[in-house]
Amino acid sequence: MLEELKRAVLEANLELPRAGLVALTWGNVSGRDPGTGLVVIKPSGVPYATMKAEDMVVVGPDGKVVEGEFRPSTDTPTHLVLYEHLAGIGGVVHTHSTWATAWAQADRPIPVMGTTHADLSHMEIPVTEPLSPQQVQGGYELATGRAVLAAVAGRPAAEVPAVLVSGHGTFCWGASPDKAVEAAISLEEVAKMAWLTVGLAPSTGPLPAHIIERHFSRKHGPDAYYGQG
Amino acid sequence: MLEELKRAVLEANLELPRAGLVALTWGNVSGRDPGTGLVVIKPSGVPYATMKAEDMVVVGPDGKVVEGEFRPSTDTPTHLVLYEHLAGIGGVVHTHSTWATAWAQADRPIPVMGTTHADLSHMEIPVTEPLSPQQVQGGYELATGRAVLAAVAGRPAAEVPAVLVSGHGTFCWGASPDKAVEAAISLEEVAKMAWLTVGLAPSTGPLPAHIIERHFSRKHGPDAYYGQG
Amino acid sequence: MLEELKRAVLEANLELPRAGLVALTWGNVSGRDPGTGLVVIKPSGVPYATMKAEDMVVVGPDGKVVEGEFRPSTDTPTHLVLYEHLAGIGGVVHTHSTWATAWAQADRPIPVMGTTHADLSHMEIPVTEPLSPQQVQGGYELATGRAVLAAVAGRPAAEVPAVLVSGHGTFCWGASPDKAVEAAISLEEVAKMAWLTVGLAPSTGPLPAHIIERHFSRKHGPDAYYGQG
Amino acid sequence: MLEELKRAVLEANLELPRAGLVALTWGNVSGRDPGTGLVVIKPSGVPYATMKAEDMVVVGPDGKVVEGEFRPSTDTPTHLVLYEHLAGIGGVVHTHSTWATAWAQADRPIPVMGTTHADLSHMEIPVTEPLSPQQVQGGYELATGRAVLAAVAGRPAAEVPAVLVSGHGTFCWGASPDKAVEAAISLEEVAKMAWLTVGLAPSTGPLPAHIIERHFSRKHGPDAYYGQG
Repeated sequence: MLEELKRAVLEANLELPRAGLVALTWGNVSGRDPGTGLVVIKPSGVPYATMKAEDMVVVGPDGKVVEGEFRPSTDTPTHLVLYEHLAGIGGVVHTHSTWATAWAQADRPIPVMGTTHADLSHMEIPVTEPLSPQQVQGGYELATGRAVLAAVAGRPAAEVPAVLVSGHGTFCWGASPDKAVEAAISLEEVAKMAWLTVGLAPSTGPLPAHIIERHFSRKHGPDAYYGQG
Repeated sequence: MLEELKRAVLEANLELPRAGLVALTWGNVSGRDPGTGLVVIKPSGVPYATMKAEDMVVVGPDGKVVEGEFRPSTDTPTHLVLYEHLAGIGGVVHTHSTWATAWAQADRPIPVMGTTHADLSHMEIPVTEPLSPQQVQGGYELATGRAVLAAVAGRPAAEVPAVLVSGHGTFCWGASPDKAVEAAISLEEVAKMAWLTVGLAPSTGPLPAHIIERHFSRKHGPDAYYGQG
Repeated sequence: MLEELKRAVLEANLELPRAGLVALTWGNVSGRDPGTGLVVIKPSGVPYATMKAEDMVVVGPDGKVVEGEFRPSTDTPTHLVLYEHLAGIGGVVHTHSTWATAWAQADRPIPVMGTTHADLSHMEIPVTEPLSPQQVQGGYELATGRAVLAAVAGRPAAEVPAVLVSGHGTFCWGASPDKAVEAAISLEEVAKMAWLTVGLAPSTGPLPAHIIERHFSRKHGPDAYYGQG
Repeated sequence: MLEELKRAVLEANLELPRAGLVALTWGNVSGRDPGTGLVVIKPSGVPYATMKAEDMVVVGPDGKVVEGEFRPSTDTPTHLVLYEHLAGIGGVVHTHSTWATAWAQADRPIPVMGTTHADLSHMEIPVTEPLSPQQVQGGYELATGRAVLAAVAGRPAAEVPAVLVSGHGTFCWGASPDKAVEAAISLEEVAKMAWLTVGLAPSTGPLPAHIIERHFSRKHGPDAYYGQG
């Protein structure tokens, strides 16, 4: 079942090590089938080098495995709650990509310091509140997803396509698994540029709003004129 | 038409991800045919992996598409105004290369801190003035090109082969598309070395003028003795 | 003899340059055969490009060569004393990996700044005491191993899978040669993330204990639920 | 003539971009034939991708081309004066490798902060005095070589295998072209580790002398016990 989505999810997972976003078996990508609401996700702890499309696990919105030989990623409850609440998304990625994770560990949101960031989002990349002991005990991965949603604060998914999880890493999303991976690639590059900018000029503020909005609207929304759309 | 130039422009575009200067579909290279004044440029938002020479778009000096199935790069008006005003150039490159963009985001020109820089230019790499809301509204990409030209300040193109666009990225040029890419590769390396130098010795000033001029003139101008000339 | 272990040790050694952990002939991996107590280790100073399984050297717990044409790694006495005192380990790795070595040279332990670290260990990565002239004279490599053991301070090997040797580099271990290399890969990534975090927020403290323990216990111990169990 | 040395010099030059030490056509390696005193060196400005052994240029100790279609590297006079005064060397490398050049641009010698450095040299990597206008005018490349020799200060070549040229880059040497490239690879890694160490602990001093000497003598001199020697 869902053969095409499995291939897309496999391919998106394989792109993570190719793009330098993950080491070992860290990181995972899922995709959602809009017709059935089923989610296809990477199995837990399986090496990228030998993963095949048929190893992808199909889960229902309640987290129960519908098809697959392997256990799904331990982060599955985070993915599912994001699909439930972020309207229109079709792919979710989790990484510990190096430069973005440094911002997450420093507990600092990434300001919009340049147009590379504005091409991804016209807002700063938010960082979640730390989880309390109670939240961790009552379902750690679900609590992580809820903290991500709290950081999004009800804004449209396309305007905030990425969140830093405090002390942890990143969650990104998009219309499809590969678009979610594109957001993760952009986020890592934006995080690195912002880190290096702070090193040169610690007090750099955000770009002026008229530049941010122009760049964001070149790629997103009704007036977009980037690409072949 | 212009088959040879299309192949050269394609090859120069493909060199950008190989040299680590761009991720995803960021960045673009164009080339100008001196006989006709036509410009060949990368299509907008097409993946590097599948781009072919025949996908390159031919535009006139007025920006009208003369040949090509795809829309040209959204940055085409910037390229065209640079060709119009920088005498003798045959190739233009735009990147968000990481270390150079950090300087652009910090709004700082790159001083001539070493001979690697002096081999590229005997002057600091300038940074443009920020664009006003009026400039952005009245044609953002054209205004960007005009800001680049203002930063060049009438100096010969061969002496200032690269400019940082404030809060954005880089534009570089040369006698041909591949020479423009060489300038972009040099600029990124120069930006990284300068960043690292500032980290070790924040008050490092420029090289003495007699070293700068000797190195620049080894590679450029009538007394050049580098290469097989 | 020990053909399978030799292949595993060769493969683990070859993973070091592939993972960017070593340059030239720096670094070495060994594996221990639990049945005989013999240790298989990389020969000293042989290039990775031409190393074969039969070049691996077999040594006894006393350091005497049992089989092999080549001299064993000069670091063999360090490996042997770690096998003697760290119960249950089957592989040891030594590297000068760049970011971890920077912490070792700065003589600073790496605090648990994020969940990537907590997945590797729930404690800071300790740094050894510097060796005295007497220790260096009385068998430098053995003294290095004893300093590593002193930094472990009797804790289980699985809880402290890596130690920084002050002014030198890293030793890591695991249940097998490839698990030891996984620890070395994780350590280098953790060291880089921590370095970058300090750059953004110098006073960043460790993660709260309830997050550290939750992440560590997802991968380690009786309640682990990461992977395919 | 000197076919074997030409192949060795070609191979050593090709190792520079593979090891990430040079971009474009920057950098060059030469080798000296001890029997004739002739020096084989890379041609100036020829791309690495298409260089062949027969393109290497043979020059006499006076700098005159003895064989070869191409002009020799513009840095040839620097190479020649190093061969003349550094007894026993058979290979010389020049690079602008990124991290080492940052130290050169900051005009700071690299202290012996760890055993990776001690494996290369038991002394700090010195930086040359800046060249005066008179020195530049009276033969820039020869003056560069003399400044390198002044920084070596008469010590044996094997003890100081690398020098930073202030505001410029590196010169390294060894018993053969490939050993000189090994020194250049080690230097770049040492420079990066030292840079990162300064970032964590700006006041880090050199290693204690007894550790430095032990590590240096494991690899160099009459008591060396590293490798298969």
